[in-house]
Amino acid sequence: MKGNVLYGQSGGPSSVINSSALGVFLEARRQRDKIDKIFVMKNGIVGAIKNQVCEITSQNTDLLKLRHTSGAIFGSSRYKLDDCKIRPAEYLAIVKTLQAHNIRYFFLNGGNDSMDTCNKINNYLQMVNYECRVIGIPKTIDNDLVGIDHSPGYGSSAKFIANLMIELDLDNSSYPMGRVVIVEIMGRNAGWLAASAKLASIVGHGPDLIYVPEVSFDSQSFVDRVKKIYQTKNRVLIAVSEGINYREACRLNIGQTDPFGHRVLGGVSYALASLIKEKLSLETKVINMGMAQRSAARISSLTDIREAEMIGKEAVRQACCGKTGKMITIERKSNIPYSTCFGLADLETVANKEKRLPLTMINKSGDNINDGFIEYALPLIQGEDQDRFDNGLLDTFNFVFSK
Amino acid sequence: MKGNVLYGQSGGPSSVINSSALGVFLEARRQRDKIDKIFVMKNGIVGAIKNQVCEITSQNTDLLKLRHTSGAIFGSSRYKLDDCKIRPAEYLAIVKTLQAHNIRYFFLNGGNDSMDTCNKINNYLQMVNYECRVIGIPKTIDNDLVGIDHSPGYGSSAKFIANLMIELDLDNSSYPMGRVVIVEIMGRNAGWLAASAKLASIVGHGPDLIYVPEVSFDSQSFVDRVKKIYQTKNRVLIAVSEGINYREACRLNIGQTDPFGHRVLGGVSYALASLIKEKLSLETKVINMGMAQRSAARISSLTDIREAEMIGKEAVRQACCGKTGKMITIERKSNIPYSTCFGLADLETVANKEKRLPLTMINKSGDNINDGFIEYALPLIQGEDQDRFDNGLLDTFNFVFSK
Repeated sequence: MKGNVLYGQSGGPSSVINSSALGVFLEARRQRDKIDKIFVMKNGIVGAIKNQVCEITSQNTDLLKLRHTSGAIFGSSRYKLDDCKIRPAEYLAIVKTLQAHNIRYFFLNGGNDSMDTCNKINNYLQMVNYECRVIGIPKTIDNDLVGIDHSPGYGSSAKFIANLMIELDLDNSSYPMGRVVIVEIMGRNAGWLAASAKLASIVGHGPDLIYVPEVSFDSQSFVDRVKKIYQTKNRVLIAVSEGINYREACRLNIGQTDPFGHRVLGGVSYALASLIKEKLSLETKVINMGMAQRSAARISSLTDIREAEMIGKEAVRQACCGKTGKMITIERKSNIPYSTCFGLADLETVANKEKRLPLTMINKSGDNINDGFIEYALPLIQGEDQDRFDNGLLDTFNFVFSK
Repeated sequence: MKGNVLYGQSGGPSSVINSSALGVFLEARRQRDKIDKIFVMKNGIVGAIKNQVCEITSQNTDLLKLRHTSGAIFGSSRYKLDDCKIRPAEYLAIVKTLQAHNIRYFFLNGGNDSMDTCNKINNYLQMVNYECRVIGIPKTIDNDLVGIDHSPGYGSSAKFIANLMIELDLDNSSYPMGRVVIVEIMGRNAGWLAASAKLASIVGHGPDLIYVPEVSFDSQSFVDRVKKIYQTKNRVLIAVSEGINYREACRLNIGQTDPFGHRVLGGVSYALASLIKEKLSLETKVINMGMAQRSAARISSLTDIREAEMIGKEAVRQACCGKTGKMITIERKSNIPYSTCFGLADLETVANKEKRLPLTMINKSGDNINDGFIEYALPLIQGEDQDRFDNGLLDTFNFVFSK
């Protein structure tokens, strides 16, 4: 049936989530027999509940800038939708918004929490017989979505981290006596992002140690390893997931939790630096890039940008073919040449689940990453977007929700 | 007279110090009537003292990669040369190294401390009648060298910081309620680097507050400003120099000093975050990029890369014309079009001095930067080096000192 599109962004921003938005818009404009207008929600599902939506019109001529605009330009949220039996008012409000704008194609772009939201909405709309295709568009720098080879957003953050390692290693090698440099990398339960530091080893600048949440952290062997490496090299470069289970780190955490009950992390690198200072009296330096890791448009991967856009287009195509309750997936056909195709996964099977770094990609001593990971990740960081700068500054898409 | 070149790197690394090295090498090769061989010191002046020098031969075919290799690839040091009357042995050792390799052209690439070293060596060589031209090649991301419009290295770090602000602002604007994001920026006594955050305001993503060491910091008005901005915008983006005189920050410093007596800094952003949490109970996020600010080859300014290379060439030309005891300077002719020429300053007049951000570039309330700064800094961040990546990774020059 013919109707309108509603697109929203959800969860943590990434360098390429706006490319997926572009893909949705471009494909929706092509599907003239099925789709009339395109609306976006303000702050994801919150906008659908509050009827804060806005039409994307043909006046937005600079839409292509979405390719090099990081962050979630239409606003994101981490709002958790309760079960429809517990809080039916929110579902009624969403349906009201959909009806008000004749929405028949609903897209939420996010990670595993967002797929849960998507799934609940799809189930509810079916229950109340409101005809609407609901498709989840994957996005997470954490790369922890199940049912997909890799998530859009991951390649760009991985590229950022790999190149940061090269730069930090070059910097730390500038002095006769270097420091123990500890780089704290995002990753609550999955070490995919910290593992991407390994890619720097291809050009001889990989970290000496990489710690991921998938293996238990032993502080004594950490201190021993740092001591030994420093004795040999006069410097140590360490990449560490924010989520490793180092007990001392908890002391430094604020203990806040987000609405999904995840602990807000931060601080493990400082705890490790204190440990090194205390046990080895070595000069340490902590690098905490924070959100810069997920929003580094200046170094996003062209492969990632293109895949993000294509997956947005694919979502619209599948919705127009009648699919609903699905997340678009990427399947890898081969590494050399890098080749992929799209697939579909039931939202039910991906919602709230986490894909962790396989143990086969981690070395035996649990303090570095195996070369097998390089084969997996290297194709994802290829290519640069040469048009992203204007006047020396990122040329970003700007959007203001009309009242 | 005909002789050989000795080139060394000194002080903190930058994105473009290796471009200056390239400039020296390329021009030295052209000056065949004056220059025979090119040597580099390992870890700057330390290599000259220890006779750890190495010839740059025509085998190094990938020298052009120096343009996109950050860090000090030939090794740097912060070694302070004592007065020759206090520790004459070091000077004797340096002369021995120069004689051993028939060095008649001596170049040290660094900041104001390095110009002090350069000056001492020049004076000593004149005193002992060892004929050698000594030229200082300026480099500092801090932009605090006197006698020069701007220092090579500054433009790239400024570009990095400006674009980081855009990304962080986009990220922080993704949620209905943003955070108080505090970005700690290098700068001991001069606010040039923190000021560069202002450039992001050109595209509407500048920080709400910028604090530099040139004005005294008042914690009460800081808290008041943050509170007011948060009430209006639901988010605050703050750029702060590591060197602002916030007393509480000292508590978090380790209190280490480097050989020049400068306090090793770090921690002010955490002190400010604690203050905000305590006084306003707002969610804060600290971004501490550390060395990434000075070694971000992935976003270096092409203008800066080219100037760094040209200034290296100019140093060789001036030395070949018989100049000694000088630092090469950059004089700005006009902003639009951006136009500069080279000049010379006596090492004596630039050594150990610091150029601070003029108060005219700082706003009246001392918490932001004026537009006058934009005119000054914008030309310095123009252009991108499109060839810096290979296989998705920085394509860096690698160098190992032969024994």
